[in-house]
Amino acid sequence: MTQINRQWVLASRPEGAASPSNFRLVEAPLEPLADGHFRVRNHYMSLDPYMRGRMNDSKSYAAPQPLDQVMIGGTVGEVVESKHPKFAVGDKVVAMFGWQEFGTSDGAGVRKVDATHIPLSAYLGAVGMPGVTGWYGLNKIIAPRAGETVVVSAASGAVGGVVGQLAKRAGARAVGIAGGADKCRYVVEHLGFDACVDYKAGNLYQDLKAVTPDGVDGYFENVGGEVLDVTLARMNAFGRIALCGMIASYDGQPLPLKHPALLLTQRLLVQGFIVSEHPDVWPEALTELGTLVAQKQLHYRESVAEGIEQAPQAFIGLLKGKNFGKQLVKLI
Amino acid sequence: MTQINRQWVLASRPEGAASPSNFRLVEAPLEPLADGHFRVRNHYMSLDPYMRGRMNDSKSYAAPQPLDQVMIGGTVGEVVESKHPKFAVGDKVVAMFGWQEFGTSDGAGVRKVDATHIPLSAYLGAVGMPGVTGWYGLNKIIAPRAGETVVVSAASGAVGGVVGQLAKRAGARAVGIAGGADKCRYVVEHLGFDACVDYKAGNLYQDLKAVTPDGVDGYFENVGGEVLDVTLARMNAFGRIALCGMIASYDGQPLPLKHPALLLTQRLLVQGFIVSEHPDVWPEALTELGTLVAQKQLHYRESVAEGIEQAPQAFIGLLKGKNFGKQLVKLI
Repeated sequence: MTQINRQWVLASRPEGAASPSNFRLVEAPLEPLADGHFRVRNHYMSLDPYMRGRMNDSKSYAAPQPLDQVMIGGTVGEVVESKHPKFAVGDKVVAMFGWQEFGTSDGAGVRKVDATHIPLSAYLGAVGMPGVTGWYGLNKIIAPRAGETVVVSAASGAVGGVVGQLAKRAGARAVGIAGGADKCRYVVEHLGFDACVDYKAGNLYQDLKAVTPDGVDGYFENVGGEVLDVTLARMNAFGRIALCGMIASYDGQPLPLKHPALLLTQRLLVQGFIVSEHPDVWPEALTELGTLVAQKQLHYRESVAEGIEQAPQAFIGLLKGKNFGKQLVKLI
Repeated sequence: MTQINRQWVLASRPEGAASPSNFRLVEAPLEPLADGHFRVRNHYMSLDPYMRGRMNDSKSYAAPQPLDQVMIGGTVGEVVESKHPKFAVGDKVVAMFGWQEFGTSDGAGVRKVDATHIPLSAYLGAVGMPGVTGWYGLNKIIAPRAGETVVVSAASGAVGGVVGQLAKRAGARAVGIAGGADKCRYVVEHLGFDACVDYKAGNLYQDLKAVTPDGVDGYFENVGGEVLDVTLARMNAFGRIALCGMIASYDGQPLPLKHPALLLTQRLLVQGFIVSEHPDVWPEALTELGTLVAQKQLHYRESVAEGIEQAPQAFIGLLKGKNFGKQLVKLI
């Protein structure tokens, strides 16, 4: 009997917010495996904000997600069939197979991982692209000195949580910004940030000011919009801003920066970056992050949607901040 | 007979645009010279956009200009009386004596200069603070590679002219933005830029696009507002922006940045800077700039107002772009 591979493809490009109708679930029969190939049953697929940008047909750092093709994305899983000399049945792998239950590969871009000390799903979060993103922005752009204050937006998310914990390990004061009291409590109590401000409480500038009495030296930005405006107004001279994401404007409406003159008067550095363009740092970053996770010194939380059917709703929720920690879809 | 020193003091802080009523001309008698001091007759005083910022009483990188005190500013002149062992009558000096005819000093912050190969006034322009500002932003932030495109706003000004000429010497394509056909012609024909766009012509984006067919890799920003928005939209991936001035918003109205998400999608670097905070580069920069001016390989133009009475009007004109090249006031 031919096995079926369920896949989500991009059916149409969003006008404004992404909606379930932009995606279509298709069933493709699995072809017989060719020599030199192997097949992976994906256990988890990753949902990340960058995917929203790929859904647009606009000039950006990456080619748009093609229509009618499987949605891009990171996956972890287990080799279930192999005609490849270096991948054996039972191997655990991290790959970019996208929003589907199975992936077939000749090995390019697929990495075997050890799931005995590190949970397999962590390779999509703290020990994967989001973790390395946080590591790069903190260490290569913000480069905090002991005693400095580092602010992180989307602090309970997969990237932000790593940034704050690494900032603390560097001797800095870590202040999070997150949506809601629950997330803020988690950021302080479980991730060990010094403070966290709830941007939904409606008093962002005053609340941020209260917990950054010495101003802000480093800012890891995932959000944009009001959160960026407010934090910019708290920046100290010679501050550094790692610009990683602007999820607030991913749905299309451009959000202006209200006071760009602050970049001059405070002599700030702003650096936009995409972690995939810095492959040189990945080995060092993954080694450090993997060690910390294995030793339970780096904490994270996951929002897990059950079953591939849930992927679009989970993704749309992620864009609205409904996730709590790394958003995954569990496939098996 | 006691000699009189005419001085401009700040009479009041501007609400919006600076006006003549913000300044007051006073006459102070020159006190007898103390031991260890010397007196300078200022030949030229410098007018620079940064002075507008100092007139506000707002948080910035420098203390505000105090009310009823002599306006801050660079000067060049000649020692006319000395009780200081290292400064003799006839020495030419560059100093920060401000908007006045005479300066008295113990030597702190005063530098003797050679006016035989370099015109004295150039020490307030291409071989002074404006020149080093251009040198720093171009070499330390933009760091153009041969074949790249560098855009410079306020290109006919004291800073912008240096930036474009140094960019050309580095093998880059230099494109200016200036106000009016005369300034644009000068930027191309006399300063040797590859092209110049007139922002007053009303078609800035299309005009800039036409002369930057390969996009923009480096941007030296003196202006802000629309000019910044438009140039940002032309930036290539990994572009560098040296943020030196935002003269468009100096009169108080904050000008937003319309599409900050471009900083992320193009992975741009933005660095605000103040050249006085980088004293380590001054000797190298001044040596290079002085050599180029003496060899007539670095060109510049001056707008000279005659007589100290003209200083406020000349300064207000500078803020409106009425100057053409480095704005000076000739005092003798």
